[in-house]
Amino acid sequence: MLDIRIEKTQNPKTLPEKDNPLVFGTIFTDHMFIMNYELGKGWFDPRIVPYQPIVLQPSAMVFHYGQEMFEGLKAYKTEDGRTLLFRPNKNWERVINTNRRICMPEIEEDVFVDAIKALVKIDEAWIPTKPGTSLYIRPFIIATDPFLGVRPSNTYQFIVILCPVGAYYPEGLNPVKIWIEDEYVRAVKGGLGEAKTGANYCASLKAQVKAHDEGYSQVLWLDGVERKYIEEVGAMNIFFKINGTIVTPVLNGSILPGITRKSVIELCELWGLPVEERKISVDELLDAAKSGALEEVFGTGTAAVISPVGHLRFEDTVFQVKDGGIGQISQKLYDTITGIQLGKLEDTLNWTVEVK
Amino acid sequence: MLDIRIEKTQNPKTLPEKDNPLVFGTIFTDHMFIMNYELGKGWFDPRIVPYQPIVLQPSAMVFHYGQEMFEGLKAYKTEDGRTLLFRPNKNWERVINTNRRICMPEIEEDVFVDAIKALVKIDEAWIPTKPGTSLYIRPFIIATDPFLGVRPSNTYQFIVILCPVGAYYPEGLNPVKIWIEDEYVRAVKGGLGEAKTGANYCASLKAQVKAHDEGYSQVLWLDGVERKYIEEVGAMNIFFKINGTIVTPVLNGSILPGITRKSVIELCELWGLPVEERKISVDELLDAAKSGALEEVFGTGTAAVISPVGHLRFEDTVFQVKDGGIGQISQKLYDTITGIQLGKLEDTLNWTVEVK
Repeated sequence: MLDIRIEKTQNPKTLPEKDNPLVFGTIFTDHMFIMNYELGKGWFDPRIVPYQPIVLQPSAMVFHYGQEMFEGLKAYKTEDGRTLLFRPNKNWERVINTNRRICMPEIEEDVFVDAIKALVKIDEAWIPTKPGTSLYIRPFIIATDPFLGVRPSNTYQFIVILCPVGAYYPEGLNPVKIWIEDEYVRAVKGGLGEAKTGANYCASLKAQVKAHDEGYSQVLWLDGVERKYIEEVGAMNIFFKINGTIVTPVLNGSILPGITRKSVIELCELWGLPVEERKISVDELLDAAKSGALEEVFGTGTAAVISPVGHLRFEDTVFQVKDGGIGQISQKLYDTITGIQLGKLEDTLNWTVEVK
Repeated sequence: MLDIRIEKTQNPKTLPEKDNPLVFGTIFTDHMFIMNYELGKGWFDPRIVPYQPIVLQPSAMVFHYGQEMFEGLKAYKTEDGRTLLFRPNKNWERVINTNRRICMPEIEEDVFVDAIKALVKIDEAWIPTKPGTSLYIRPFIIATDPFLGVRPSNTYQFIVILCPVGAYYPEGLNPVKIWIEDEYVRAVKGGLGEAKTGANYCASLKAQVKAHDEGYSQVLWLDGVERKYIEEVGAMNIFFKINGTIVTPVLNGSILPGITRKSVIELCELWGLPVEERKISVDELLDAAKSGALEEVFGTGTAAVISPVGHLRFEDTVFQVKDGGIGQISQKLYDTITGIQLGKLEDTLNWTVEVK
């Protein structure tokens, strides 16, 4: 077990009221985890301290060269009072891959998971219990060298913060409208698309604003090379049910390997549903929509779990997915995954980790 | 003139000693400029304060989603004691383009230039005077909303810091070795490559480390679509002299529009040298090197001004540029641009702006 120095807050905040809608990412708990890194010394001084500002030199590399990474996962409170994390070791695997891609020092699996467990335990009272709510966990690493040359930083901070959240989409499990982007590109093979780093999100802002202005809640990205294959939705991976088969874009180096994505594939396989990871072009999608073969579309991600898509637009073509409602598979996946996360269904796949 | 609140330091630092080698980006002056932005209020409270840390919430968007931009330019001290900036209005033009691309609020031209002038004036004593030295100016903007949802921030800080610098490359105007990267990609059309934002630099780290490990100081990037056209060097644009013609990759959306690049093109045109902005493939480059048609290669950038390239490597092919020395055009461009910057040559093109 990681030896964590603990400094408890002397001024605990008031917990959000039960009826607070808990807008995603706005309310933070009483404590945060911090650990420092120096080249030659490694990670040191793991500590839990009162939630407080970060103080950095103006020349800190994170402000200039975007060397930063983050993860996202959730803690859930079960009806019998246990606290469960959902597949945190899969987040750690992604941390390692991201860190290698952007030249950050690696963190050991136990250190990563223990830090999260210890912090969630201390702020356990903050885990909300209303349906659809959870405690969102945001681990992140920032480059802190006070140096303006371009190279990997020699110093870092690994920080974990927590926020009680409601549903990511105010619509809840209602179908969202998706804009298929034909001008801007999120990521390309050889770039940072499969790493969970700020660059991909910064790259997504412009198209997101355009889509919002047109009344769409999310952007579906095409590949950056041929500009015709479906990639992902930035905050989510994307799945299609076409003629009874579940199809999702194959991980090609520019798509984030989502943990909910992986869980959905594993569940479909468990249920004996045909599931394919492969290239899927926007033309195939449009044809499937026209012919009626496109039975369901849904996004998968930690924040929203499953987001049914009711409506897509590509250039001037707008099309509804079936009746635009919530598909049968979308609903079953949502019920199953959230059921396991909340301890309502038996966790036969050993996906949850209890915080004790 | 921008109305700037000024709080002078009570504890001025000791100026670097004359023989200090001034490693790029490590020493900062006594003051910094800061201005805040809030949606609905615009930019406000422009101020010059003692150089000090930045204090931000752990949830500040810049730490998570990479919404950050920067610029780089220099102030020079002339022999007759004047302080000159080099084409700061071109930096402002690029600020605007970057800000639009990554959904940041724009800054007015006068505000940008006045902020720099006022700060440089206050820390004028920090401008070093030894040959090859200058005062590097780093304006940057960071997204500060304490919010974990993905969208453009509603609050920002625009900051300017200054550092006295020697030559960017310890080699000085000695030829550098360039690694042509065939695996990783810096940027792609539709992405962020033409914006001066952290994402492009984060994306460059992995190949840069690989190149350094092989003994190369910089990476030359290929396009992300066909992976065969030359783009840029991350910290520099790139020029080739082939059979007497100066060739540089045409700005295609994934190349940073360098101000030194622009100045070089304008000088070549002024001198009546044939200069072409066009696609140039790595194959063409290799052929030109083999046939002896590749007469000079040089990088252009604010930090290094002109960097002759003596040696390139693509996959397993290593080739020298001519005798690997400093080309005639490289030397003439360096002498002319630095001559104008330092007030030694008449500024017939009106490139310099005096700080009074």
